[in-house]
Amino acid sequence: MTQKEQGANAVGADNRWPDIAGRIERDPDGMRHVLPVRVYFEDTDAGGVVYHAAYVRFAERGRTDLLRLLGTDARRMIDGSDSREPAAFVVRRMSFDFARPARMDDLLEVVTIVKELGGASVTLVQTISNAGVRVCEAEVTVVLVSMSGKPLRLNADVRAAFLAQSQSRD
Amino acid sequence: MTQKEQGANAVGADNRWPDIAGRIERDPDGMRHVLPVRVYFEDTDAGGVVYHAAYVRFAERGRTDLLRLLGTDARRMIDGSDSREPAAFVVRRMSFDFARPARMDDLLEVVTIVKELGGASVTLVQTISNAGVRVCEAEVTVVLVSMSGKPLRLNADVRAAFLAQSQSRD
Amino acid sequence: MTQKEQGANAVGADNRWPDIAGRIERDPDGMRHVLPVRVYFEDTDAGGVVYHAAYVRFAERGRTDLLRLLGTDARRMIDGSDSREPAAFVVRRMSFDFARPARMDDLLEVVTIVKELGGASVTLVQTISNAGVRVCEAEVTVVLVSMSGKPLRLNADVRAAFLAQSQSRD
Amino acid sequence: MTQKEQGANAVGADNRWPDIAGRIERDPDGMRHVLPVRVYFEDTDAGGVVYHAAYVRFAERGRTDLLRLLGTDARRMIDGSDSREPAAFVVRRMSFDFARPARMDDLLEVVTIVKELGGASVTLVQTISNAGVRVCEAEVTVVLVSMSGKPLRLNADVRAAFLAQSQSRD
Repeated sequence: MTQKEQGANAVGADNRWPDIAGRIERDPDGMRHVLPVRVYFEDTDAGGVVYHAAYVRFAERGRTDLLRLLGTDARRMIDGSDSREPAAFVVRRMSFDFARPARMDDLLEVVTIVKELGGASVTLVQTISNAGVRVCEAEVTVVLVSMSGKPLRLNADVRAAFLAQSQSRD
Repeated sequence: MTQKEQGANAVGADNRWPDIAGRIERDPDGMRHVLPVRVYFEDTDAGGVVYHAAYVRFAERGRTDLLRLLGTDARRMIDGSDSREPAAFVVRRMSFDFARPARMDDLLEVVTIVKELGGASVTLVQTISNAGVRVCEAEVTVVLVSMSGKPLRLNADVRAAFLAQSQSRD
Repeated sequence: MTQKEQGANAVGADNRWPDIAGRIERDPDGMRHVLPVRVYFEDTDAGGVVYHAAYVRFAERGRTDLLRLLGTDARRMIDGSDSREPAAFVVRRMSFDFARPARMDDLLEVVTIVKELGGASVTLVQTISNAGVRVCEAEVTVVLVSMSGKPLRLNADVRAAFLAQSQSRD
Repeated sequence: MTQKEQGANAVGADNRWPDIAGRIERDPDGMRHVLPVRVYFEDTDAGGVVYHAAYVRFAERGRTDLLRLLGTDARRMIDGSDSREPAAFVVRRMSFDFARPARMDDLLEVVTIVKELGGASVTLVQTISNAGVRVCEAEVTVVLVSMSGKPLRLNADVRAAFLAQSQSRD
């Protein structure tokens, strides 16, 4: 059984909430992952809008669920139960541009596309929008590191999955 | 147009993600709201499990989405655009019992039932489970207060909606 | 070198910020730990006040720094470098009563006293106040568990330290 | 009474915790604000290290306390009680570079310097270090906006305060 099948099964196991990890969609430029994110009180601040650091969490949810749908969820990597040493993607660099505020009860969408694939790193572009209008745009570079902190090469399965995501985009 | 219809429309407007606010389900004892919550890195701590305060946020998501499905979302109350003065439900008292840990990538369900309805308050019992096993149980009393801090009586619509939730439960 | 001395040194090592872990104070009824907590935007919500789950984090900071001043910081327990197996205090039960709101920029104080000492558990009463007025009161029971989830007896050092905190209180 | 005096009084009012807002220090290149930040469980994740979005909160604490020591705290701006219309600094753009992980119980320092002053914006460079070693470096541009979302020119007091912070740095 490949990583991908295991991942699909893990998702399918909870068929009560089919969209819980968002969806991978094909758009004219390639493939993209879309995750809906509801704004709750926990995400807002006394300025009446979404707190800026909340978008960093939203973006991480998008990346995590993209990995999940690619069949490589975080826990298996951390546990090493994908038969490699325990590892995790960590953020090496990120930049966020905030275009307009979002508010309590808004239903946002986090769109994640793979921009670039390095030996041990992946750079993603993530756009967060509200009813079709862009709220925030981010570029995030993550690196696969072992629990001891050593960068690890992306294995063939992960690499193939990411490439499938990004290949038609150019 | 009643509050309930407005709320339903607001939810229906985003028909790409039909389950995003969870579901109201009928069980043998009455009605209950169920919201799926995925555990992301943001919810965990260095102990390797879900941080205890994260469950407090999960419970609040459940209450917020129950209100949403009842047609009374938080933003309209805060804005006063439901034609009353701006108001919000605030937590007056809460207790949480933690039965077992949850971990990264787990898909939890927050079940919320209405336990008791006061003049300006609602007491809810909320159970958080993981693959059918109870992780945490909470009892939370919220009070409707105006922006100036004055407790407000629940209006007839809100009261009726909550009663429909709780009535057969006894 | 005892645990207590190691802890004191670890705190003393950063003598640029002597109060960073709060203080243990003697009051008429016994001893208590006081930690100042500033309210930042991250702690507030769109209702204009401190988000209720933020108090749960504030209380945990108080408990963590009480342990630190008692010479038993969390990382050493997690690492097992206090020469026992890796362990952590986890919350088993908590209740919070909210008396009045706090706001952005407020300087709160978290007062923690030891209420009861069990074989593997400690129950603490924590009061959060704002300029001398009580904002929130909590009772929290924590249990020492090993990384594998097994409850562990509090060792003699930890027990003695907690008893010194609580003994004159009755 | 100037803004600066009011701010100083507000800080002085709580003379039990003199360093709670950090310190403004003079270094060879100009002035800088330093804020100590303790890592608690709430800041860590299941990878065993500080969660990347926590640094975004730490940086905001540094900026907030720099403003406080400059005599311009956030609540007075939000309330408009500095005799201008209600306003707040919001983040327009931020980039974070992560050099190495930090862990539970670490005592970090957030150093903030003013890099550039625009008509309605301020760009800050913020370095987060752990025992003298750089953990993370950020550049953040904030804009002063009214509650209705309109950018506001920095007033003379705020401008003078920031210039004093940055002037000798070039």
